[in-house]
This record gives sequence, C-alpha cells and structure tokens, in this order.
Amino acid sequence: MLSQTAEYALRAMACLAYRPDELTTTPVLAKQTQVPSNYLAKVLQVLAGAELIVGRRGVGGGYRLARPATEIRLLDVINAVDPVERISTCPLGLANHGTNLCALHRRLDEAARRVIETFGGSTLHDVIAEAAPSLPLCDQEMTAKLRINIEGSPNAPAYPGPSGHG
Amino acid sequence: MLSQTAEYALRAMACLAYRPDELTTTPVLAKQTQVPSNYLAKVLQVLAGAELIVGRRGVGGGYRLARPATEIRLLDVINAVDPVERISTCPLGLANHGTNLCALHRRLDEAARRVIETFGGSTLHDVIAEAAPSLPLCDQEMTAKLRINIEGSPNAPAYPGPSGHG
Repeated sequence: MLSQTAEYALRAMACLAYRPDELTTTPVLAKQTQVPSNYLAKVLQVLAGAELIVGRRGVGGGYRLARPATEIRLLDVINAVDPVERISTCPLGLANHGTNLCALHRRLDEAARRVIETFGGSTLHDVIAEAAPSLPLCDQEMTAKLRINIEGSPNAPAYPGPSGHG
Repeated sequence: MLSQTAEYALRAMACLAYRPDELTTTPVLAKQTQVPSNYLAKVLQVLAGAELIVGRRGVGGGYRLARPATEIRLLDVINAVDPVERISTCPLGLANHGTNLCALHRRLDEAARRVIETFGGSTLHDVIAEAAPSLPLCDQEMTAKLRINIEGSPNAPAYPGPSGHG
C-alpha cells in the first residue's frame, strides 16, 4: 500500500538508526536493505534533501541521521519521499462540494488519517529498540551481535554491518 | 496515499453505481470523473477483467456494474487495480524473521490492516446513498436532478449524465 520508495526509505533509515554516530556508505546500506544501489542512492538524496540524514562525500564518507532516532517519526520518513495527504477539499474541484467532502472522499480521507496515525505514532527509535524476536533489517548473525552490543550499551546500539564495524 | 489509478477506479465505479441498468460510455465517464479518456479506458479494462463491470462494444455500448452496488466494496475496486496487501512474512526474506515480523514491518502491516478495514466496510451503494450535502462526482445541477430521481425511485437512482439520459 505504501510505495516501494517509502518502504525502501524506511529500511534505510532503520539501518542508519542502529549506528547514529557513524557514516554508512550507500553500498553497505544497499546490501542491508536489499535495495538496488542506484535506486537507493536516489532515495538517500531525497532523504538528505528533506534534512532527515546528512551525507559526506568521498573516502570515509556516507550518511548518518540528521537528528536522534527518537526525533524522527516513521511518518517523517514517508512524507519525505511519498507524502500521505489528508483530503480537505473536493479533489474534482466541484464548487458545490468544496470542503463538504462526499461519502467517497470522506472514506479516502479516513484511510489517510489512519495511516498518518499509525506512522505518526512511532519513531525510528521505537522500531529498533522494541523487544521483539526479530530486529528490523537484521539477520541472525547481526541480531546476535546487536544483542551483545545492546547489553553493553543499551542507549547506543551499534549496528554490526557486513564491513565488520560496530 | 492510494494510487491515482485506485482513486480513478473508485470515481468510475461510483458513476456507474448511479445508473446500474444503463451502459455508460467511456467519454461520458471520463467527463464525469475528470479522468483523461485514454487513462480511464485502461482502468475500465482492468475493472472489466476483474469482473466488477461488464462492457459492450460498438454503437450503444458502454459499461455497467457487473453486480449490484450493494455487493461491491470499495476495497474490491481498489484491489482490482492496486491491491492493498497485508504483510505476513518478512519482505526481505530474512530466515530468522519469517512470520515473526519486526517492529517496522508490523507497523506497515498495521497500516495495511487499517486501510483494508476502512475500504472493506463500505460498498459503492453506501457512498452514493449516504445522506450528505454533496454526492460523489455530482455537481450542483446533477445533485438537484438526482435528488428528484431519488425521491421518485429511492432504490434505483438514475445518474443524470451530461448526455441528458437518466
């Protein structure tokens, strides 16, 4: 239901949330998110344009979150790439409708309201810190490493990427 | 949030719901739904393929609903063109996740569940028959005509199209 771009953006942001203090390269993110590298590069540019992440070019460059994961809602990520919009006036521009939405567009608006409520109520931190059998984007090996890291430093889990960092 | 195609399909189906016993041409539907004719023609083909509408070619041809508007949910229309899908297993195929969705994909699934609930709970009949200041797809003139028709025949409102039929 969400666009593929929105899903990919959420994956990338979750990856970055695990390692807030490091710069992560696009190839590393592409591998972890299972998103084609070229596609992901464009998504990351949009996220940077929305000031959700900051990037540094060149050797040792990469991306990191622009602010703490506790301050980035899933909705912020989605809205950066594929905004969920409420309907306030008739999309057909019918003068006799105006802000009195018909029953059809009230349903469409209600669906948007519910989606906004769902994604507006969770931050990136919520989804990576929630106690669950599976952690976002983490296979078995990464989960095991992360559990060790979380035990050692619960407030700043370092994401064990394929490069061996963290 | 819904795709443009899904919104257009809903508009076309609402139009057809007003005149269940007539064949309505694509140009008439295109005008009433404010959808480009070529685009709408493709949407109608998909809806016909999903057996939500039936068409007849040639002079006097057009489309009508395949079954009563009371038996077509908004969700059926959306699913015909742009399915809303629950997430039951990890979209990344992570073996350690499987059906134990992570917190991120549980949110995505929850949003899908809510959208399905919203559109699964209303039929085309619900949206055209609901007492409201504005009727789906109807400008002031059409609304006035329709009110007269509804008063005369509450169970089979005839949609007053620009051709003057109904």
